[in-house]
Parts: sequence; C-alpha cells; structure tokens
Amino acid sequence: MTSTPGRPTPAPFCASTENFAEGRDTPRAFLERCLERLDAWEPVIGAFVCTDPSAARAAADAATARWKAGRPLSRIDGMPVGVKDIIETFDLPTQMGSPVFDGWQAGRDAASTMGLRDAGAVIVGKTVTTEFAATEPRGTRNPWDPSHTPGGSSSGSAAAVAVGIVSAALGTQVIGSIVRPASYCGCVGFKPTVGAINRGGSHDYLSQSATGILAASLADAWQAMMEMAVRVGGDPGFEGLFGPATMPAPRRPTRIAVLETAGWAVATEAAKAVLHDAAERLAQQGVAVVTRRTDPRVEAVEQAVHDAWPLSNRINAFESIWPYKDYRSRDADKLSQACRDRLDEAATIGLDGYRKALAERARVRALYAALASDCDACIALPAPSAAPVGLRPTGNPICVVPGSMLGVPALSVPLFEEAGLPLGLQVLGFANGDADAFAVSAWLAEALGVPDA
Amino acid sequence: MTSTPGRPTPAPFCASTENFAEGRDTPRAFLERCLERLDAWEPVIGAFVCTDPSAARAAADAATARWKAGRPLSRIDGMPVGVKDIIETFDLPTQMGSPVFDGWQAGRDAASTMGLRDAGAVIVGKTVTTEFAATEPRGTRNPWDPSHTPGGSSSGSAAAVAVGIVSAALGTQVIGSIVRPASYCGCVGFKPTVGAINRGGSHDYLSQSATGILAASLADAWQAMMEMAVRVGGDPGFEGLFGPATMPAPRRPTRIAVLETAGWAVATEAAKAVLHDAAERLAQQGVAVVTRRTDPRVEAVEQAVHDAWPLSNRINAFESIWPYKDYRSRDADKLSQACRDRLDEAATIGLDGYRKALAERARVRALYAALASDCDACIALPAPSAAPVGLRPTGNPICVVPGSMLGVPALSVPLFEEAGLPLGLQVLGFANGDADAFAVSAWLAEALGVPDA
Repeated sequence: MTSTPGRPTPAPFCASTENFAEGRDTPRAFLERCLERLDAWEPVIGAFVCTDPSAARAAADAATARWKAGRPLSRIDGMPVGVKDIIETFDLPTQMGSPVFDGWQAGRDAASTMGLRDAGAVIVGKTVTTEFAATEPRGTRNPWDPSHTPGGSSSGSAAAVAVGIVSAALGTQVIGSIVRPASYCGCVGFKPTVGAINRGGSHDYLSQSATGILAASLADAWQAMMEMAVRVGGDPGFEGLFGPATMPAPRRPTRIAVLETAGWAVATEAAKAVLHDAAERLAQQGVAVVTRRTDPRVEAVEQAVHDAWPLSNRINAFESIWPYKDYRSRDADKLSQACRDRLDEAATIGLDGYRKALAERARVRALYAALASDCDACIALPAPSAAPVGLRPTGNPICVVPGSMLGVPALSVPLFEEAGLPLGLQVLGFANGDADAFAVSAWLAEALGVPDA
Repeated sequence: MTSTPGRPTPAPFCASTENFAEGRDTPRAFLERCLERLDAWEPVIGAFVCTDPSAARAAADAATARWKAGRPLSRIDGMPVGVKDIIETFDLPTQMGSPVFDGWQAGRDAASTMGLRDAGAVIVGKTVTTEFAATEPRGTRNPWDPSHTPGGSSSGSAAAVAVGIVSAALGTQVIGSIVRPASYCGCVGFKPTVGAINRGGSHDYLSQSATGILAASLADAWQAMMEMAVRVGGDPGFEGLFGPATMPAPRRPTRIAVLETAGWAVATEAAKAVLHDAAERLAQQGVAVVTRRTDPRVEAVEQAVHDAWPLSNRINAFESIWPYKDYRSRDADKLSQACRDRLDEAATIGLDGYRKALAERARVRALYAALASDCDACIALPAPSAAPVGLRPTGNPICVVPGSMLGVPALSVPLFEEAGLPLGLQVLGFANGDADAFAVSAWLAEALGVPDA
C-alpha cells in the first residue's frame, strides 16, 4: 500500500459562503487550500487528466471580488470544481479517456460546464474518466487505499472530491458511474432524474445517461446542480431539474422501501449487515420500513429490476453503434477490447431488438413509479462491498444499475464503512422527485448518525 | 435574372439500380453525370460549401465493383448524396454556416453520415446551411430562378437535389427547414417523426428537430432514410424509423384532412387555388375530404396549431441558450443579429416558461394524434407561395411549422407550380406512421397527375 498524505477529507463549499460574505475567508484562499491538497494528493491518486491552476486562480480572484462587493453570481460563486473528461471545456482538452481523442480540443464549453462557469464556479481541471465513460479504467486510485479502485467511470471526480481538491465535480452515469465511485471514495454522489441537466457537449449519448455530480456535501451537490439547471435547463425536450433554489430541508420519511437488487447475491456479509442495521435503526425511529418479504409491490419491483444490468447493456450497446463504429473504422487499435466487444454485441440486437428492450424498460419504469404513491424513497447498497482491491475492473455496478435503468434520482450518502474503507447508503427517489430524494437523504444522514454528510 | 444551364431536373437513383445490377450503367457513370451537373450548376446556385470529387469517384468505383460482383451493400450503394453542413463528416470540415466554426474538423462522421456511408452512398460534398440551421442565409440561390431564395435552412441540399448534382441530401428541420426548401426547389422533402433518425453528430440540439432528407424521388427519400435507420437507429431512447425495407406501395386514402394552418392568411390566391383544386380532384376520385368547415376535429386542430410558430420559437430559444451563449462569450461578432436576438428572447423565458411551452406542445400533439383514428393523412400548402424573390429572408415557414411542432412525418411532394416556379404538396402523417405518409403521398402523386414524383 502506497502511503497517502492523510485521511481523505472533502472540502464543503456552501457551508463556507457565509465566511466569504462576511470577509473571514475568500474564494481565492479556499482555492489555495484546494491546490495544496492537489499537490499533496494528485501524485498518489491520479484524479486529473490536466489542471490549470493559473486559470483557476484568476477565476477565484474574480469570485473573491464579487463576494467582497456583495454581488456573487450565485451560491457557488468561487466553488472549485472538476469537469469529468467526457464533458467539453473550451480552455482544456477533452480526451474522453481515449487515445482516439488525444489532445482533442472541443473549442467550446459543454452545457454543464457553461452552467457552472456562468454561476462563478472555478474549474480546477479535467478529471479522469474511463474510456468513453464506459468500463476501461485509466489509472485513478482510491484515496483511502491506493491499491483499491476508486470506481468508475467518474473515477477522477470521486477521488478529487473525496480529498478536497475540489468541492464538487461533474459526473455522468448510465450504469453505475456516479453512485458507485461516490460510495467507494466516501463522498456524496448524485445522479438526477434522466434529462434533468442538459447534456449538450457531453460525449455520453445514451438514453439512460445523466449528468450528475460528486460533491463534498449534499448541500454542495444540490446547489451546483440547481445552478446549472436554471442556467442551461435539462436535455432538450425534458423539463429539467425540479426543486428549490437551495438545499431542501431534511424531511422525515413516513415509509422507506429496502431494495436488495440483484447485488444482494454477491454482496459481502458486512455490507448486508450495514444495510440491515440501518433499516432497523430507521424502524426504531418510527419509519415504516418495507421489504420484498413484507410488501408484494416491493417484491414486484425487485423482480422487475433484477435484470436491469443486461437490459441496460443491450440498450447501451445498440445506442453505441454510433460513434464506436465510426471510431473503429479508422482507429480500431485505439479502442479497448471492451469497446470492440460492445460493438459485437450491438450487431446481434438490431432495431427490433432495441425496440423490445425500450418497451421492457418502459414497463419496469411504470411499475417502479407506482411505488411512489406510498413510499418516500428506497434505500439500497450502492455496491456489494467497499472498493475492491485492484484498479481493473472498477468494481461491480450491480447495485446501482437499477436506478440508472429506471431513470430516477439516485444518491450515495457517505454514512458507513467496511474494513476501514467507505461505504455509502444509496437513496433512490422517483422521477422528477429529486428534491424529495435530497430531503429524505438529509434526514437519513442525521438519523443514521452522521451529522454533516 | 442570371441565366441557368437549363431546366432543373433531379436524378433519381433507386430507379436506376436495375441498370447497375444488369450492367447497363454503373455508379461511377452515374456520378460522372452528377459531377457534370455540379460543374454546370454550382457557379449559379452555390449549393455547396465544399466538395471532394476525387473521394466521391473512389467511393463510386468501389460501389461499381460491388454491383458488378452482385453484392451491393444496400439499395443505395453508389447513390450520390450531399451532407448538410450542420452534420459531421470525418473527411470534410463541418462549419455550420457560421464563422465560429471556420475550417472546423469534427474528426468523425455523424450517425446519419456514417449510416449513409456504411450503406455505400457516395458523399459528393457538404451542402450549404443557414447559420446553425436557423435563419441567416448563406448565399445559395434557387435553380429555377437565381434571384429567388431556395428556402432554408437546408438550402444547399434542396438546390443540389433539384438539379441532379446528388440524388439525395441530408437535411434537418426544426421549424420549416426541409419541407419549405423542397417545395421552393421542386424536389421531394421528408422530415420524419421526431427521433426517427439518430442525430448524433448533427449540431442541431433542439427537441423538435429531426434529421430528414431532400431527394429526387419518394423512393430515393424512403430508401436513404431506411438504410440509415437500420444502421444507426433513431435518437437514443427513440424507436427509430418504422416501415418496410423498401418504398411502401401507393395506398389510396379513405379520408384526407385539408389543413389551412396560420399560413392561409398570407398565402397567395394562386397557391390557395392549387390546394383547393387538389382537394376537389381528390373528392372527385372518391376520397373523403374534410376541412375545418366540415369537421369540428379539423377545426380544433387548426386552432391548436395556429400558434405553432411562436410556440416553437419559445421552445427553440430556450434550448439554444447552450451553445449560443457559449459562442457569444468569445465570438459575439461572429454571430448574426438573429442569433443574438434569440439569446435575448431566451433570457425572458426561464425554466418555468420553458416547461409551460413543453406542456402546451404536448397538449397540441395529443389533440392532433386523435385525428389519426379516422384520417389517413393531412394535406396542406408547404409555403404561402412559390419561392419569393430575394435571398433574404429564406421564405416564410408558417405553413410548415405545425408539422415540426407536432413531431409528425411531413413531406413535400413536387406536384404543382406557381408562375413558373415549383410548389409542393405538403403531406402530414401521424407519429411513427412515416410509411403510411409515404404510401399516401405516392398515391396522391399519381392521383394528382404526376406519374413519377
């Protein structure tokens, strides 16, 4: 085990803004502390593809001036952020974790990048993504133990947030790419309702993919997302992120469903015990907790999401014919075997097979949506265990893919641990109920004993 | 009036493939005839941003070899095509009709480009688009009279197809960008059901935008679209173009609705007489023709689509905040006034206003969909007149925007003329009923007296 500079500790931003307003701290000073952590941690974790400290300092100085003048652009004015390298930035290359895009310059900001920048966020750098935000890892290490994976595909975003190099970082999730690395690295992860944040200029083209965030706190996650939503909206034709302008207040749920998912069969006893214990503590506090064994509707959902992973893979494979096939036609040797395999799988599906998969996904989504009538949220493990040893593969997404396939809000809240490594609590909400999912998550974080999640 | 090389005459491809199969003609010889027309017409009409005749010849030679070997890649193997310059091509720049993208190389094919190329189509060049496929014209002239507009935004595609430089060319439509120029230039135009063709790598990001085609014949239009659909599918999450592998047989409609649209108030008497006459001839042939005066459901649709244009503009403006605002932040002087005005309009809308507009659009779509229960299709003018004189603006889209807003298949069939200039018949179908719209269009073309539309 490589030694690390210390215990990974995130750097919440929104909790600090009062200090900026009152002159006790500045965004520039906040950034300098982040850059110190960058220097200390980056050689160990490899979270960034590239950074631009001088541009970040200039942006932080501008934010400092705005706070001093009493005119911040938003509540995240000056927030140090990372941008997952599947997402375009006009001033830094966008390389998508692939040699096909070595040094490629988009020449513009993606919608999410533009939204953050317009709100005053300070872009520290591009964070490492697996190849095309899929499975092939690109070397980032887990800050809790560098011999373990940080998870993927938002590997660099999770690791960078976990050690406080940035307060938040953009992520994308189509299978398990935000919630799983958040759990592994011990930060908040939030994948919103599908379509909630405009994916223009983000090179994940898949129908169940969503732009979300890794963040130091629930408040930071909510604020960064909402600042983007009001500035650039959701995907074209979608209604965008619903909810209040600031972090929703904690709300005690009346009824919570525990979902085992297909991941239960491969989860460690320790992880299962953690979820069991959490459910019991909630029940002791008067929350009605239902499970597949006590509620037939939960059992129906469990059965319906059991094959979420293969179903999602079929949909993703067909939707990846373009652009993968185009890349393969010129640069086959620059694509991973996993990427070429996905093309081979796609060739067996066809438009009819794809339509059947979409219909099945719509069926399962409707079935899950019915739960909303009397459950406030679902809780589940975000992974079968804490981060496994080794950098390849990036860990098992089996517990997270149901939320991706369902298109619903999904969070990982850093509440637990297993053998000294972090383990999150996954909270699943209902479509467009992202604010409710945050309110319940905040209450769960308090109820389960972590005062400042 | 500049003199032209003769009467514009399209070059249907699918009608020729028997000749390729039987050795009487070759794709290379077909292409050479197209390139002769390129030399003769291009100086007059300015349909292309760039061409690559040598790459086209190499592709045509490969197609020729495949037809000789009895193994064409598809029924469009060897078809000369144009690619609207809002759509990516790996071998030619993609400049979007904007100096912001002067010389920009995408480095890859868009999904539609890849689909055409994989089916053996021969890319002759990039066709002129208005700025960002919106309103600012880029100099293409109408081949029937170069002092008149060819329409927009698919200006170059319509003009190039009309004179037989290519048999088909990609277009995109979000307001009136395929059907209107098709009518003005005298070729077939087809905008499919929204989402029917994968827009990956096409830089129109709007929710009611669709990739479609300008073509020399209905058969060419259908075949090119279906070859793309089976290879690259629809937009992610959409079911893709439905219908048979080859052009649907003509089908006599039982009932046709005539839609006036808001365009009736500004249409010329000659154009209105053309539609009146067509409706009468259909009635004489035993087709039940209903109008706003004879059927309350048609009247309800007329009222519902009356404000399609301002509603669409609101939706498009909000959805254009990204990327226009990003471009403006660095290159404001490279944007047209129209583009900057759209950003100003967007600033007045907000996420709530956008949601209201989406809800209104959904309401109108549902209302229109109910017509499908007893109408086979609707017919309408594709424009208030034949192409007006002048290159700016590109003509009035008021008759076409209902089909765009409704997200339904819309065709322009080159059947009529007004004062020596072409005027099409607009045929509107129902969502995912693209094949029905073609079958009815083919029958209407026969019934209204044009044997080979």
